[in-house]
Amino acid sequence: MANYNVAPLETLVEQFEKMPGIGYKTAQRLAYYVLNLSKTEAESFSKAITDAHEKIHYCEVCCNLTDQRLCPVCSSEKRDKGVICVVETPRDAMAMEATGEYKGTYHVLHGAISPLNDVGPDDLKIKELLARLSGEISEVIMATNPTVEGDATAMYLSRLLKPMGIRVTRLAYGIPVGGDLEYADQVTLARALEGRNEL
Amino acid sequence: MANYNVAPLETLVEQFEKMPGIGYKTAQRLAYYVLNLSKTEAESFSKAITDAHEKIHYCEVCCNLTDQRLCPVCSSEKRDKGVICVVETPRDAMAMEATGEYKGTYHVLHGAISPLNDVGPDDLKIKELLARLSGEISEVIMATNPTVEGDATAMYLSRLLKPMGIRVTRLAYGIPVGGDLEYADQVTLARALEGRNEL
Repeated sequence: MANYNVAPLETLVEQFEKMPGIGYKTAQRLAYYVLNLSKTEAESFSKAITDAHEKIHYCEVCCNLTDQRLCPVCSSEKRDKGVICVVETPRDAMAMEATGEYKGTYHVLHGAISPLNDVGPDDLKIKELLARLSGEISEVIMATNPTVEGDATAMYLSRLLKPMGIRVTRLAYGIPVGGDLEYADQVTLARALEGRNEL
Repeated sequence: MANYNVAPLETLVEQFEKMPGIGYKTAQRLAYYVLNLSKTEAESFSKAITDAHEKIHYCEVCCNLTDQRLCPVCSSEKRDKGVICVVETPRDAMAMEATGEYKGTYHVLHGAISPLNDVGPDDLKIKELLARLSGEISEVIMATNPTVEGDATAMYLSRLLKPMGIRVTRLAYGIPVGGDLEYADQVTLARALEGRNEL
């Protein structure tokens, strides 16, 4: 079998196979898709990869991804620079942004504290966050994931920031909108009960 | 939302999103994977795409994919050049090859007759197949898919080849090995009954 493979095709399949959630069969399908592209299409695909890699870097202020010096949020005059929403990844910031409800700025940690994976506070963009706090910050919203790692990170940061007199909040835990009480897991339900509001 | 996007990242997401079976969320995940690659890794990924595209072409004899003049099967002296297995796509040939049971050669049609999709016999590599039949061919095995299109193609070719005195066969239809009679669809079961063998 191995003798009858086409080397450049196999290389491409291997490249796709390395990607998250892509197995051998899917990688093969994607490789054949690439082969069926026109020359220009294949070139622009290839260029998109190197381009994204070369042009995108971290925003000097919030460490989100950008191809400018500052990301669009940090450079926008419409955003409230006094509120910082701390997220784990650029994708989390994008999810927050998609709500259209948030008018403050972000800070992307690029990970969460996870002793099991050997990720400590020094591996995250915490220094960069502290550097921003010299200005007038009215609130820091912890929007790390509701996981052990995300919670630990939020706790670590809140212990760091509260003594500085900064208001630190955390996103609400509870039943997802449209969710069914019956199918909510126990922990979520307990948290929803804990965080109940006056009607 | 759209104002806060990073252009090179969006371009990359769009490229991934065009691929079969990849939606927006997955495309995003893959794009972030690419961003997290090292510079060398990203370059070799990008190169794999252009390389595959530039170096791979059709085998002069069987129209399978290869980076040589002839594909490994056609250039191998161990393969029986008198038997041709006609398949729709290079992946089908690869599947046949994976059985390890087939010792003949292939012919890749690159599609199947499908009037609905405007694919006629002239769009397939049938001319190339006919050109091969001048040699000593003992058997042509129709291994097109058991679909309306695959069946039509097999039928079309068999009507073309039989008058030339060539033995044309078709892969057996039946219940998949390890399959359950209870869950086999009616058509498959009917075909399995039709094609029953003496024990």
